[in-house]
Amino acid sequence: MKILFLCGGVGKRMQPLREDKFFFKFLGKELLLHHTGHLKALGFKEEDFVFVGNPANIERLRGLCGGGVKYAVQKSPRGMADAVLTANEENLIRSPGEDLLIVNPNDILEPAAYEAILKKGGARGRGDANILGYKVDKYFPGGYLVVEEGEKIRGIVEKPGAGKEPSDLINIVLHLHRRADEFIEFLEAENERRGKGNDRDDVYERAMGRMMKAGFDFRVVEYDGFWTAIKFPWHILNAMAYFLSTTDKLHEKQVVNPATAKIPESVKVEEGAGKVVVEAGAKIFDNVVIKGPAYIGRDSVVGNNALIRGSQIGDRCVVGYSTEIKNSYIGDDCWFHTNYVGDSVIGNGCSFGSGAVTANLRFDEKNISVAVAGVQTDTGLDKLGCLMAENCKVGVNASIMPGVRIGANSVVGAGTVVTQDLEPNKFLFFRAEQTLRENRVLRENRLGGGKKEEGEKKEERLSLLF
Amino acid sequence: MKILFLCGGVGKRMQPLREDKFFFKFLGKELLLHHTGHLKALGFKEEDFVFVGNPANIERLRGLCGGGVKYAVQKSPRGMADAVLTANEENLIRSPGEDLLIVNPNDILEPAAYEAILKKGGARGRGDANILGYKVDKYFPGGYLVVEEGEKIRGIVEKPGAGKEPSDLINIVLHLHRRADEFIEFLEAENERRGKGNDRDDVYERAMGRMMKAGFDFRVVEYDGFWTAIKFPWHILNAMAYFLSTTDKLHEKQVVNPATAKIPESVKVEEGAGKVVVEAGAKIFDNVVIKGPAYIGRDSVVGNNALIRGSQIGDRCVVGYSTEIKNSYIGDDCWFHTNYVGDSVIGNGCSFGSGAVTANLRFDEKNISVAVAGVQTDTGLDKLGCLMAENCKVGVNASIMPGVRIGANSVVGAGTVVTQDLEPNKFLFFRAEQTLRENRVLRENRLGGGKKEEGEKKEERLSLLF
Amino acid sequence: MKILFLCGGVGKRMQPLREDKFFFKFLGKELLLHHTGHLKALGFKEEDFVFVGNPANIERLRGLCGGGVKYAVQKSPRGMADAVLTANEENLIRSPGEDLLIVNPNDILEPAAYEAILKKGGARGRGDANILGYKVDKYFPGGYLVVEEGEKIRGIVEKPGAGKEPSDLINIVLHLHRRADEFIEFLEAENERRGKGNDRDDVYERAMGRMMKAGFDFRVVEYDGFWTAIKFPWHILNAMAYFLSTTDKLHEKQVVNPATAKIPESVKVEEGAGKVVVEAGAKIFDNVVIKGPAYIGRDSVVGNNALIRGSQIGDRCVVGYSTEIKNSYIGDDCWFHTNYVGDSVIGNGCSFGSGAVTANLRFDEKNISVAVAGVQTDTGLDKLGCLMAENCKVGVNASIMPGVRIGANSVVGAGTVVTQDLEPNKFLFFRAEQTLRENRVLRENRLGGGKKEEGEKKEERLSLLF
Repeated sequence: MKILFLCGGVGKRMQPLREDKFFFKFLGKELLLHHTGHLKALGFKEEDFVFVGNPANIERLRGLCGGGVKYAVQKSPRGMADAVLTANEENLIRSPGEDLLIVNPNDILEPAAYEAILKKGGARGRGDANILGYKVDKYFPGGYLVVEEGEKIRGIVEKPGAGKEPSDLINIVLHLHRRADEFIEFLEAENERRGKGNDRDDVYERAMGRMMKAGFDFRVVEYDGFWTAIKFPWHILNAMAYFLSTTDKLHEKQVVNPATAKIPESVKVEEGAGKVVVEAGAKIFDNVVIKGPAYIGRDSVVGNNALIRGSQIGDRCVVGYSTEIKNSYIGDDCWFHTNYVGDSVIGNGCSFGSGAVTANLRFDEKNISVAVAGVQTDTGLDKLGCLMAENCKVGVNASIMPGVRIGANSVVGAGTVVTQDLEPNKFLFFRAEQTLRENRVLRENRLGGGKKEEGEKKEERLSLLF
Repeated sequence: MKILFLCGGVGKRMQPLREDKFFFKFLGKELLLHHTGHLKALGFKEEDFVFVGNPANIERLRGLCGGGVKYAVQKSPRGMADAVLTANEENLIRSPGEDLLIVNPNDILEPAAYEAILKKGGARGRGDANILGYKVDKYFPGGYLVVEEGEKIRGIVEKPGAGKEPSDLINIVLHLHRRADEFIEFLEAENERRGKGNDRDDVYERAMGRMMKAGFDFRVVEYDGFWTAIKFPWHILNAMAYFLSTTDKLHEKQVVNPATAKIPESVKVEEGAGKVVVEAGAKIFDNVVIKGPAYIGRDSVVGNNALIRGSQIGDRCVVGYSTEIKNSYIGDDCWFHTNYVGDSVIGNGCSFGSGAVTANLRFDEKNISVAVAGVQTDTGLDKLGCLMAENCKVGVNASIMPGVRIGANSVVGAGTVVTQDLEPNKFLFFRAEQTLRENRVLRENRLGGGKKEEGEKKEERLSLLF
Repeated sequence: MKILFLCGGVGKRMQPLREDKFFFKFLGKELLLHHTGHLKALGFKEEDFVFVGNPANIERLRGLCGGGVKYAVQKSPRGMADAVLTANEENLIRSPGEDLLIVNPNDILEPAAYEAILKKGGARGRGDANILGYKVDKYFPGGYLVVEEGEKIRGIVEKPGAGKEPSDLINIVLHLHRRADEFIEFLEAENERRGKGNDRDDVYERAMGRMMKAGFDFRVVEYDGFWTAIKFPWHILNAMAYFLSTTDKLHEKQVVNPATAKIPESVKVEEGAGKVVVEAGAKIFDNVVIKGPAYIGRDSVVGNNALIRGSQIGDRCVVGYSTEIKNSYIGDDCWFHTNYVGDSVIGNGCSFGSGAVTANLRFDEKNISVAVAGVQTDTGLDKLGCLMAENCKVGVNASIMPGVRIGANSVVGAGTVVTQDLEPNKFLFFRAEQTLRENRVLRENRLGGGKKEEGEKKEERLSLLF
C-alpha cells in the first residue's frame, strides 16, 4: 500500500500564522510526524510514504521527513485531485494491486482512526474504497456521507444545512482506495472535463461521485474518537488540548516525568486535570506551579514563581519570573518575563518585555471575532488572547487586546495598547505627547508647611519618538 | 422594650458607593445584622425590632430582616424625628410602660455599648432617658453632652469647636427613652412648631433639649470602647479594620480556621497582627501568603502566589495569580488577576484585568482629598487607593490614581491612567495616537553589520478607537 | 609614610549620578572607607591619612572620615598636581624622610595591590618611586608604562593606540614616592612652567617624566588582580560585581549569614554563583528567592515572593511583593513594589510604584549608548536598564527605556514611557487625550440578545492634566 500525504495546500485562513499547519509541533514533534508515527507503529515503512508538497515547503518537508520517503511537488497547488495526479505523474503511487491511502495531515485523529480504516477497510472483499466517517452529534459545515444498506456510501453532500443531513457521518480525508488505477483514471477524466487551469477543489469529490454512480463499492468506516481540523489559527489551541490529553500514553523514555526529574521540592506539580510533561534538559526553578495538562519542551527554563497551566511550552523557551502562561500554545525559543499570556498562540522566537499582557476577555464578555481573510469571523470563544506569528517582540507594559493577530517579525512598543491586527514586519508604538515641567511638588514638600516656591514654572510639551 | 432602627436616611457623601451603609457586609454579614445579632445575644426577640426604611430600600430590608420584625417607611426621609414619628403613626413603638431604644445602624459599636446602655440605663430609678456618651480624647466635630452633677445631661452642644467642649463625651445615637409617650409628644410638638415640610435634622435634638428644660431627667452612659460612624466611603476601611479585629471572638463553626482547613502546606498564614478567617468553600492555592487580620469569604478562590493582608475578601471572589490585596475592602463576586489593590474599597461584581493597579500614595506624600458632594475633602489619609462602586471593569495595565472614585457599571480601558472621578455607567479610555512603520531595526539586525535596507520608509499615524 | 587620597576631582561623566564616586557604598561601606580599611589592615593609622577634597564635598568627607585624619581643600580643583601641592601648602605631607603614597579612591583594587606596592615598593634600595602597573591582555585607552631593564620605568605614554603599546602595563594611580621632597619640587616647577590657572591634568605626569629624565629611579610593581575605574555611571555595576565577589572574605560578625539568620524556611537562598549576605536587621519574607551573589543592607525588607539576583540592596530599603531586582545597584532607602529592575543603578531614596518597569534590552539587541556630556557613548552593554539619581519617584505602570538617565528629585508619572534622559527636578508625564462615553456595551449585555439601547450617545474628549 502507498500512503499519500497531502502537504501541498496553501491556506489563507491561518493568518497571521504562516507555517503549514502540519509543521506545528505538538509535544515536541511536528504534526506530520505524529501521522507518520502512527502509521509506522502499524507496520508501515518509510518506502510506503509519498509526500506531495509545494515549491515553498518542499525543502522543509525533505528536511523533516528525510531521504527514505518519496516526494512530489505541486508546482501550483490546485487541490487534492491535482496532488494525487502530480504524485501519479512521478510514478510514485500506482503499482499493480497496491492500495492507496490518502491522508490529510492537517486533520488530527487518534491512532484508532488509522487502525480502523486499515483493519476494516483493508479486510477481504470490503468494497472498492473506504472513507472514514466521523460521527457528529450536531450540525457541522462539512461533507456528509449518504449511507445506505449498512455501510455503503451512495454519495457526499457538501454542507447540506442543519436538519438536512443525510446521515450523522462527515467525510474525513482518510481514504483507502483499493482500486487505485481506476480512481486515478476517474480523476484524470474529471480533470480533463474541467479544463486546464481549473483550481476548483471538488474535482476529487466529483471523481469519487462518478465512481459511485458507475457502481464502484464505497464503504464508510465509522469513527467516533477525537477529530479536529486546523482551519483557523485558534484551532491550534484545540489541537494542543488534544495532544496534552494524550501524554499519559507517552513512553517514559520520551519524557522526564516530574516525579523522577530533579525538580526543586518547592515546585508544585498538580496533575488532577492532566499529566505534566517536562522534557529532558528543561529546568524548573523554585516556587513554580505547573497545573496539568502541561508540556515543557527541551532545554526550556521556567523561572521562579511562574505559573503554567493547560499549556504547551516549546523548546529552548524561557518562561521568566512571575509569568503566567494559561491555556496557550508557545512555540520554540520564546522569552517571557513577568507576563500574563492566556488563551494565546505564540509563534517561534517571540519575546515579551516585563509587564506585557495579553487580554483574553472582552469587557462585554461576548465571543471574540477575528477578521479572517477580510471577513469578521466569530471564533466561538469568549476567551481568546493573542495570535502571534514568529519572531515578534512585545515591549514592556504593552497590552494586546483579545483576538488581535500580529504578523511575523513585528514589534509592539513599550506601553502600547494593541487593538487592531498588525501586519508582518511592522513596528507599532504610541506616540505620547508628554509634558515636562519643574517638579514643584517635591520641592514644596521639602520647604514644608505648604509654602509655595516662586520662580520658574515653564512647562514643555514633548512629542516623543521612540 | 421596642428597638427602633433608623434605616431611612439617604446620604450623599458616600458616593460612588450607592448602597445604604448598613447593607455593607463585614465578616460575611450585613452591618445591620451585626446590630440585631448583638441585641439578640442580649435576649431580645425579633418581635421587639422595628425598622424604619425608605421606599428605595424597604424591599431589601424586608428580604434581609425577614417577616418576624416590623417595618415602617418614611415616604420622604426628613431626619430622625420623622423616622420616630412615622413608626409611631404605624403604632409600632408606643405601648404602655415600654421603653424605646433608638439605634443608628450606620454607627459601629462594640456589643459592650449595648450591654452598658441596657444595664445601666435600664436600672431602677435611672432617669427618664439615657444617652450613650462616647469618650473622646481630642476634639471631634460632633454633638457634645453638657454633663453636670454626676451623670445628668443638661444639654447637647453641636460642634462647639476645639477648646470649647463642655465635656469629653459625644452624643452617640444609642438612646434609651423610658418615657416614650412624652418623648413622642415632644417630637410632635417640635415638628409642629417647625411646620410641615421641615427637613431639618435637629427636630429630634431640639425635642430632647426641651424635655431637659422641662425637667426630664437625662443621663449619660459613658462608653470608651470602639466607635466609628461611616460617613465617607473611606470609613468603610475603618469599619473593616474593626471587624477584622474581632474575629478571635467568632464561633469556630462560623469559620474555617486555617489551622484546621485543608489548605496546602505551602500557604503561609501569619496571624501575628490578627486572625485569618477562611470561610467554608473557599480555596487557597499554593504559595499564597495571608497576613492577618484577613477574611476570605465563602467559595472564594485565592490563586497561586497571591498576597492578602489586612483585608476582607467577599464571597465568590477570585483573587488570581500574583495579586496583592492590601488593607482593602473587597465586595462579593470580584475578580482580580495580577493586580495590586491597596487601601481601596471595591464594590460587588468588579473585575480587574491583568496588570491593573491602584496607586495609593501621592508623589508629594500629602493627604489624599476627595471631592465629596462637590467639596474637596481631606480624607486624613496619606494612603488611599480607589473607591469603586459595583459592577465595574478595569482593563489590563490600567492605573487608577489615589482617591479616585469610580461609579457603578463603569469601565476603564486597557492601559488607561485614571486621574479623575468617573461617573456611573461610563467607559473611559485613552485614545492613543499610534505610529505604524516598517520594522527596520530587526531587518538591519538580520542583514548584519549595521547595513541599512533601502526602500520603503512609510510611516502611518493611526488614531485608534478602542 | 603619608597617604594622600585624591578626593577633590569633579567628574561630569557620571551624570545623572551626582555623588563623588568614592562615596558610593558597596557592601554597606563607602568606597573610600574600603580603601582606608585595607590600609589600616596593613598597619597604618588615621594620623597617616590626608584627604584632599573640594569645597563641595569637604563637609561630607569630614563626616565620613572623622577627626583623626587630616584634610586639605582644593578651592578650584585643577588636577592631581594641584591636589598634592595644596596638601603640601598645608604642611600635611612633607616631613623629613617620610614616603608619600598617592591613592586615587575612584579606582577599585584588591587589598593585594596595596600589599604589593608597600612590600615591594617599600623594600630597601627599591628606587625613588614605585608605580602600580596593571597588566592588561588587550588594549585599554590609558597611560602605558615604558618599562626597561627589569622593572625600571622610562616613561608613560598616554593612549598609544592598539598595537603600539610599549608594554602590557597600565599606570594606576597608586604611587609610592620615596623622594617626596624632590617630587614636590618637580611638581612646583612644572606647575610654574605651565602658568597659573592651568588646569591641565597632566602636570603630575609631566613632573614624573622630568624626574625620570633627571635620573630618578622609577620602578613598576606589577599587579594582575582586580582593577576597575569608575568613569561612567554604568561602571557602578562593574564595581558592585567585584565587591559582591569578595563577600566570602567578610567577617562573620559583619554579616548575618542566611544559614544562621532567622529567615523563613520558604526562602530559597542559592549560593552557586556567589555568596548571599544579609545584614543585621534585614527581614526576608516568605517565598523570597535570593540568588547569589547578593547583598541585602541593614534593616531592609524583602517582601513576599520577591526575587533578588546578582544585586546589592542598600540599607533601609523595601523590596516589596513580587519584585525582581536583577544585576542592579540599589542605594539606601529605596522602595519597590511589584517591579522589575534589571541592570540598573538606582540612587538613594528612590521609589517605584507598582508595575513600574525598567526595560534593559533594545528591540534590536544592539549595545545601549548613553549621551555622556553630550557625546553618544557606547556602553558596550547590550543589557542596561536605568541610571537614576537620588530621590526620584516612578509612577505605577511606568516604563523606563534602556540606558535612560534620570536626574535627582525627578518624578515619572503613572503609565509614562520614558524614552529620553530626564534632567534633575523634573516631572514628566504623558498627557493622554481620553475619551469618555456612555458605557453602552455592558448595558446591551444586560438587555440581552444584542438589543441596542437608544438614546444618549454623547462622547466627550478630555485632555487630562495629572
